Amino acid sequence: MNKFNFKIEYSDKKSLARTGVIETPHGQIETPAFVPVGTAATVKALSPRDLNEIGASVIFANTYHLYLRPGEKTVKKMGGLHKFMNWQGPIMTDSGGFQVFSLGFGIEHGVGKIANIFPSEEFSENKNSNKDKNDKKSIQKIISKPKLVKITDDGAFFTSHLDGSKHFFNPAKSIGIQEDLGADIILAFDECTSPLSDKRYTQEAMERTHRWAKESLDAKTRNDQALYGIVQGGAYKDLREKSAKFISSLPFDGLAIGGSLGKSKWDMLKVIKWTVKNFKKENKPRHLLGIGDPLGILESVELGCDTFDCVAPTRIARNGELMTERGDINIFNAKYKENKNPIENNCSCYTCRNFSLSYLNHLFKSREILGTQLATIHNLSFMMRFMKNIRKSIKEDHLDKFKREFLTKYK
Amino acid sequence: MNKFNFKIEYSDKKSLARTGVIETPHGQIETPAFVPVGTAATVKALSPRDLNEIGASVIFANTYHLYLRPGEKTVKKMGGLHKFMNWQGPIMTDSGGFQVFSLGFGIEHGVGKIANIFPSEEFSENKNSNKDKNDKKSIQKIISKPKLVKITDDGAFFTSHLDGSKHFFNPAKSIGIQEDLGADIILAFDECTSPLSDKRYTQEAMERTHRWAKESLDAKTRNDQALYGIVQGGAYKDLREKSAKFISSLPFDGLAIGGSLGKSKWDMLKVIKWTVKNFKKENKPRHLLGIGDPLGILESVELGCDTFDCVAPTRIARNGELMTERGDINIFNAKYKENKNPIENNCSCYTCRNFSLSYLNHLFKSREILGTQLATIHNLSFMMRFMKNIRKSIKEDHLDKFKREFLTKYK
Repeated sequence: MNKFNFKIEYSDKKSLARTGVIETPHGQIETPAFVPVGTAATVKALSPRDLNEIGASVIFANTYHLYLRPGEKTVKKMGGLHKFMNWQGPIMTDSGGFQVFSLGFGIEHGVGKIANIFPSEEFSENKNSNKDKNDKKSIQKIISKPKLVKITDDGAFFTSHLDGSKHFFNPAKSIGIQEDLGADIILAFDECTSPLSDKRYTQEAMERTHRWAKESLDAKTRNDQALYGIVQGGAYKDLREKSAKFISSLPFDGLAIGGSLGKSKWDMLKVIKWTVKNFKKENKPRHLLGIGDPLGILESVELGCDTFDCVAPTRIARNGELMTERGDINIFNAKYKENKNPIENNCSCYTCRNFSLSYLNHLFKSREILGTQLATIHNLSFMMRFMKNIRKSIKEDHLDKFKREFLTKYK
Repeated sequence: MNKFNFKIEYSDKKSLARTGVIETPHGQIETPAFVPVGTAATVKALSPRDLNEIGASVIFANTYHLYLRPGEKTVKKMGGLHKFMNWQGPIMTDSGGFQVFSLGFGIEHGVGKIANIFPSEEFSENKNSNKDKNDKKSIQKIISKPKLVKITDDGAFFTSHLDGSKHFFNPAKSIGIQEDLGADIILAFDECTSPLSDKRYTQEAMERTHRWAKESLDAKTRNDQALYGIVQGGAYKDLREKSAKFISSLPFDGLAIGGSLGKSKWDMLKVIKWTVKNFKKENKPRHLLGIGDPLGILESVELGCDTFDCVAPTRIARNGELMTERGDINIFNAKYKENKNPIENNCSCYTCRNFSLSYLNHLFKSREILGTQLATIHNLSFMMRFMKNIRKSIKEDHLDKFKREFLTKYK
């Protein structure tokens, strides 16, 4: 495609980590990169100028949400996503598959991508998560097929979480919506299975995903958008290997690792290993879907992943959980009431340059909107600095040292 | 006092309107000026840099709220209000009186400063207003004394709206708190009566306010804060005249018009007329407490008022009510769904420079935090432009023409 390119610049000697540059019609992305999530065409609590100041090079928006509201046709009429939200940098959109299917397994199993990690965005934000209540029950009960979404080989019938209306997505529909939205990087329509799905169902879904991958490629008409394929296969070694080989053999512009990543971080790392090892040796950017904790990113970078999207840094910010090099802190803690220091002394973000822990504690206790803005600015600045340090360490050939030092401090 | 000064620059020939400059230790305020309210040491949804960009020259914070949370001692330890909230411009604080007493009459009478206007901030923001439900009942029932607050000649006993704890304010206490907070302009402790209080009670409260005015002056120890006296007397001509004469005879740095302003805008204008007419002929700045609608400001400027604080422009912004020269618009209206225009073509605020009505409609429908930020930026920018136009019109001697043109368009 036009204007899309990925160049690997440095490769780590001791791991599969690498730095590179993704070129898109709306600018460059230096990798490894964290991609802040702006579900509904806004990174919650931030303006585009905040994102620029933070140093975000690319953001991620959710097709499912934008399809339901305001509708992709509205976004198209308004000049596309970049113009609509006034973000001039690169944008990625997902296929809608994850949200569609998590309406099924997310509610029924009470889990997200990794069984012990919080569920997908729309549940924790729009209703109370059933996770804690259902965890034990769900873990024991391996459900073979989601029930709130009806899946056939043709596509997925689902119900809007906004108004209960009925909808249908298939590869052509998902790609059509993403073309109307107009992101720089779009994703193939896939079926995302639950960490609690059994192997038979996970395999069936993977095979459907493979057929849909081809259909997604066929449906694509714009030549100014990069299309990434998505590897599925749950936490099953042979399925992941098969899927990695198949998806990387298709003419996608990039490769995403999706679906269930098992029941623990350890499972996740195994899944990534099996997947990356079986990619065809082409220089395509690799995106790990939905992972955004510093440790998870660090480990995944070492396994060869280039980009990462996740709602966690912005969501925990809104809950008063602030990221620091010594681990997250809870700003509601009374010990911050009269603390004049910034969140981090070595952080140069707007929040740390101008406001004390004391003021942030006050804003959160008073439920003031400014608290969520300042916390989000800080957490994303933390992530940008963290990614910059990772890139620098790879270039200077001491990623292992950076990792050791980071983990020594990080709780 | 040090560094506080008010200079009248131009006086309108056809009305009592005037332009001037208030000098404070933290900078100048060009008058007539609108003072955005930052109740809890934050103008809701805005950062100090947003306020600077908007052109706010001074902000208003609420003593009652800051006394309860985080506590004036904490603010003092953190370096005072300017440093705590990182706002380097002038700040005004009220005495706490309005909030204390509105806990009484606001709840019991279901009214604010003007009986047909929304109640004071803490009720509409922290709990559902009982206004609509109680309006008819309350208007008919003239209650002579608030019951949830116990007032004696010594001061006011009241209950925290946060945790039900018991507190006591008197002039010395209020001034002490305001000295700890450290605003540039502070207010004398007064008793604010309800528009539904009868004359006997309004007079009793006014006389108490007069004694408290002297006690406030006596309690003041800092010489880097200006202290304004507050005129009371409800909507009763003889009481307002008496109060205006008395308060303006005391050595205050400025004069505020407080308390009930009657049951309609017409009542309010009469009250202002009676008051200003009876001020001693000294060049003191005049502040009208709690009024912030364009029409009310325009009329009050013509009657000689210099500064105005009000939560309305920021509160209505958070509810999706956007101010324009043709009157307020409701951004939830479906007609904005695919409207590419900004809120106002001639507005140079960040919101109007960068975002369409379509995007704002989407943000509000999606309940996104960015919507409240962008709407607040616009409404305050509208107010700043409006005040600038008023100042310009006075200087160029055509305030009457500006008013006529403004009212021709404004609905």
